Amino acid sequence: MDKNIDKVRHSLSHLMAMAVLNKFPKAKLAIGPVIENGFYYDFDLGEDKITELDLLKLEKEIKKLISLNLEFKKSIVNDKQEALEKVNGEFKKELINKFPKNEKISFYESGNFTDLCSGPHVKSTKEINKDAFKLTKTAGAYWRGDEKNKMLTRIYGIAFQTKKELDEYLTMLLEAEKRDHRKLGKELDLFTFSPLVGKGLPLWTAKGTTIRRELENFIVNEEVKRGYQHVNTPDIAKIELYEKSGHYPYYKNSMYAPIKIDDEQFMLRPMACPHHFELYNSKPRSYKELPFRIAELAKLYRYEQSGELTGLMRVRSFCLADSHIICADSSQAKSEINNVLNLIEFVASTFGLTMGQDYLYRLSLGDKKDTKKYFENDKAWTEAEKILRDVLKKRKCKFIEAPGEAAFYGTKIDFQMKHVLGKEETAFTVQYDFVMPERFNLVYVDNQGKEKKTVVIHRSSIGAIERVIAFLIEHYAGAFPLWLSPLQVKILSVGTTHQKYCEKLEAKFKENNIRVETDLNNETVGNKIRKAVNEKIPYLLVIGDKEMNSNDLAVRVRGQEKILDIKLDKFIDLIDKLIKDKSLNLK
Amino acid sequence: MDKNIDKVRHSLSHLMAMAVLNKFPKAKLAIGPVIENGFYYDFDLGEDKITELDLLKLEKEIKKLISLNLEFKKSIVNDKQEALEKVNGEFKKELINKFPKNEKISFYESGNFTDLCSGPHVKSTKEINKDAFKLTKTAGAYWRGDEKNKMLTRIYGIAFQTKKELDEYLTMLLEAEKRDHRKLGKELDLFTFSPLVGKGLPLWTAKGTTIRRELENFIVNEEVKRGYQHVNTPDIAKIELYEKSGHYPYYKNSMYAPIKIDDEQFMLRPMACPHHFELYNSKPRSYKELPFRIAELAKLYRYEQSGELTGLMRVRSFCLADSHIICADSSQAKSEINNVLNLIEFVASTFGLTMGQDYLYRLSLGDKKDTKKYFENDKAWTEAEKILRDVLKKRKCKFIEAPGEAAFYGTKIDFQMKHVLGKEETAFTVQYDFVMPERFNLVYVDNQGKEKKTVVIHRSSIGAIERVIAFLIEHYAGAFPLWLSPLQVKILSVGTTHQKYCEKLEAKFKENNIRVETDLNNETVGNKIRKAVNEKIPYLLVIGDKEMNSNDLAVRVRGQEKILDIKLDKFIDLIDKLIKDKSLNLK
Repeated sequence: MDKNIDKVRHSLSHLMAMAVLNKFPKAKLAIGPVIENGFYYDFDLGEDKITELDLLKLEKEIKKLISLNLEFKKSIVNDKQEALEKVNGEFKKELINKFPKNEKISFYESGNFTDLCSGPHVKSTKEINKDAFKLTKTAGAYWRGDEKNKMLTRIYGIAFQTKKELDEYLTMLLEAEKRDHRKLGKELDLFTFSPLVGKGLPLWTAKGTTIRRELENFIVNEEVKRGYQHVNTPDIAKIELYEKSGHYPYYKNSMYAPIKIDDEQFMLRPMACPHHFELYNSKPRSYKELPFRIAELAKLYRYEQSGELTGLMRVRSFCLADSHIICADSSQAKSEINNVLNLIEFVASTFGLTMGQDYLYRLSLGDKKDTKKYFENDKAWTEAEKILRDVLKKRKCKFIEAPGEAAFYGTKIDFQMKHVLGKEETAFTVQYDFVMPERFNLVYVDNQGKEKKTVVIHRSSIGAIERVIAFLIEHYAGAFPLWLSPLQVKILSVGTTHQKYCEKLEAKFKENNIRVETDLNNETVGNKIRKAVNEKIPYLLVIGDKEMNSNDLAVRVRGQEKILDIKLDKFIDLIDKLIKDKSLNLK
Repeated sequence: MDKNIDKVRHSLSHLMAMAVLNKFPKAKLAIGPVIENGFYYDFDLGEDKITELDLLKLEKEIKKLISLNLEFKKSIVNDKQEALEKVNGEFKKELINKFPKNEKISFYESGNFTDLCSGPHVKSTKEINKDAFKLTKTAGAYWRGDEKNKMLTRIYGIAFQTKKELDEYLTMLLEAEKRDHRKLGKELDLFTFSPLVGKGLPLWTAKGTTIRRELENFIVNEEVKRGYQHVNTPDIAKIELYEKSGHYPYYKNSMYAPIKIDDEQFMLRPMACPHHFELYNSKPRSYKELPFRIAELAKLYRYEQSGELTGLMRVRSFCLADSHIICADSSQAKSEINNVLNLIEFVASTFGLTMGQDYLYRLSLGDKKDTKKYFENDKAWTEAEKILRDVLKKRKCKFIEAPGEAAFYGTKIDFQMKHVLGKEETAFTVQYDFVMPERFNLVYVDNQGKEKKTVVIHRSSIGAIERVIAFLIEHYAGAFPLWLSPLQVKILSVGTTHQKYCEKLEAKFKENNIRVETDLNNETVGNKIRKAVNEKIPYLLVIGDKEMNSNDLAVRVRGQEKILDIKLDKFIDLIDKLIKDKSLNLK
């Protein structure tokens, strides 16, 4: 079944090439592979441009080709010269020239069109459901993905076995598009980018910064309450620090280049752990101080490839709610890991995330045989694996195991977030580390006065602020819970006579630390409401004569039909309580 | 008078060389200049080391020389060769060799000792008050200040006209030393440095970070209340951004070197203004949005020379409470500057700082003739000066004027902080800028639909968090007001039977968001109190039988003799109120 849909998609890419050549006879073909849920084909259209309307026409043309019940005939050519004569344009020729000598070169023929293709294809277009595919979009794409090459036109299509599957997928796409944090981030004025500042470096507006601040305060307060020591360490350090930690060779490719001044080289930090270890080592430590839970909202820098950057999901600088828990021994570490998972699940539940549905744990294991990728210490790897697995099992939570996904210094538990499109991504991790205590000589004096080596847990509780906000924007579709909403109340004046009272009301909310804005513009109330609804503001107050002459408010609650009639003081109490409770729902 | 004390100091440096040569006959002399309040002399002592005791002996020896009523005779030598023969060691010879040809080379002779010296000296040691000088300390110093050269021994001395002046200065030094933020920072465990992280890059402990967090929350909340939009922008940007702003040529020397990756160069930002302007320019702006007050706790990077670095006062990375207020015109700017001074004085008074005594304003003016240092626009400079002077005059506050101290883009008001030693330093500034609006095309649409140019105010409200903490540590001598104290309450158990109750109490304080710690160690109560007093903790609770069996507390209040007898609930209410009021005094 799965295999067959791949054949269908491959065949549709073949038919798309036929359709494009019918419409643009001078087009040169590049490649046309199958991808997740569909297929694409790259064309060099010369001077021609492709429009939305063209897509519909091409779709129609493909449907016509399907109705012709064309057969796909495979043929093998052994001679490169013969193969070169059968193909259209320089790109296919380049592909053939790159084939190893004596390679069997396969072609598929249908109707009067033959294409270089390794297949497989369906036997006949009869096997393709013409109501279950769609051409979705076009994009520019460099030949062989190299920006030094020619820019080609890529046409994307999606295809399923049934129309129902297609419709469901389209609905999901539409929903994902509506929730896309890049789109909502712009519409809700949360963040922006500047070409002069650089790619992957978001500039947060006051509204976006309010969300950040609420999240940061939430996590710092919660962690301090749970015995973490929140510190503040520099975002740069001398290269020697990362050479000592071993990050430099392992992470070099994703680190920014060194800053060379005088005789020194400074690095933008990709990790905060070496900084925290230096702080721990700044004086002798006793067993009474352990577990020593150092935490920081740590700004980190990783130079992601330009093509990898996606809104706030993948950026070149981010703020990680980071921590390194320095433990006396593996038994203390085990108990701390359990505490960390308690914290993580508390944070997730505050956001209204459910295990299984919105996130899950993944146990990422090392590979003792791969001593190049992983630190060599068989006994320690075995122990670390056992501890993490034990903790997860004892909690009776579902988790998957992933061999070969560990950090170079130890086994880890990944917090896997599920996106709107159903894809899973590692949001952050909890790691068991027996390597850094050696490298940094992280020791303590035990109750007998003896020096002992520690064990370190690396962990986040919420991940990178940027990524969690991207995720939450999509999860809430921009309608944040009250405590996170950049604006909590908007006051809309009906006429000019109501302006003064609106301002008085605004002051009253501000006194109570409620984030409020007033729209005094000379527009219709309908217009003002429409704008405020688009801003996804939790509570709207329309202020006319009736409201001005009493303490009664008629409150429009986001997402509710019914108007809430309530006294001003009661309303302020209500908001206060919902904020304090970090309530997920409005009332 | 002033001139005469310089002669005395010069002569003492000469006598010190004599005394050192008496004690260390093989010593080679380097240089011995006069400095503020005293003098020093650099020696190459070979294998010999100098001790505290030696300093006393040298002092005695100098006193003996003074009693001999030695005369200082000046002589001039015109011939380098002759001069070379008169001096001791390679350093003096190097100095002579560097003199221009035909330079008159001056020597001073006293007793049997002749020294190369430009003088002036007193005529006779009779003019030196032997009770009004003191040798204070020794330090290592490279010959000619270059670390590639030999390390010499520098001996410092201070000297005044009268013993009274000396005693007063010594008392002040002692007080300054006790309050030195570097010393207190270590004793109170607020911050540390790591050679692997780098010079001038402090690592803040949990206690220091608590002070930072309180200050940051205070300033952000206060600014948001006053209509600022707190944003968050990247600490790095492409070099082109600073070329556009003009910072790159002007500030190049104090910027970190570029980070070169792919075809781009990134810079650690020395200023946040270009970032804020990019945010402002991310969409069209209307007159309704002005004044547009963008604020940020902005991390900035300036590569100070290694010799300039001093604890937290001068660092290589700091967090500035920064803001750029984009105004419609100069009249709006004037009113905003007045608001800024209101905010600054509110913040200063919250810290208990008094204008005149602890800080003052300085109006720093440009120089229209110096078009290399200052942007050329005579009319704009005149207007800016007038506006700032007007605001200061109207507030009837004392200020001094400082020509040639402006920023390259405009006139500024400096907030001058006075240190414990009486020295004045610019803590932060309020600047009037008519240059950046041109460079960044900062415009808005007025109520007629026309595009207009803006005026920008650059300002801080509290300065750099690092520097203000350094200043406050010294101002409070480490005894922070309750709201800023890293720990607010410490509970000390008398015996093991009281431990459980102490823990219960601790939980009660924590519930009420009071920063508390409990000392359950098996030591004497006296010992525990002594330690807690050194930590400068506001309130100490000793818990014995009496306290355990009632709700009464016997509270030791920092800096007070009397014990405060109070019920637990009342005590919590009291603390709560003092924190909320940001009270400067304990009760």
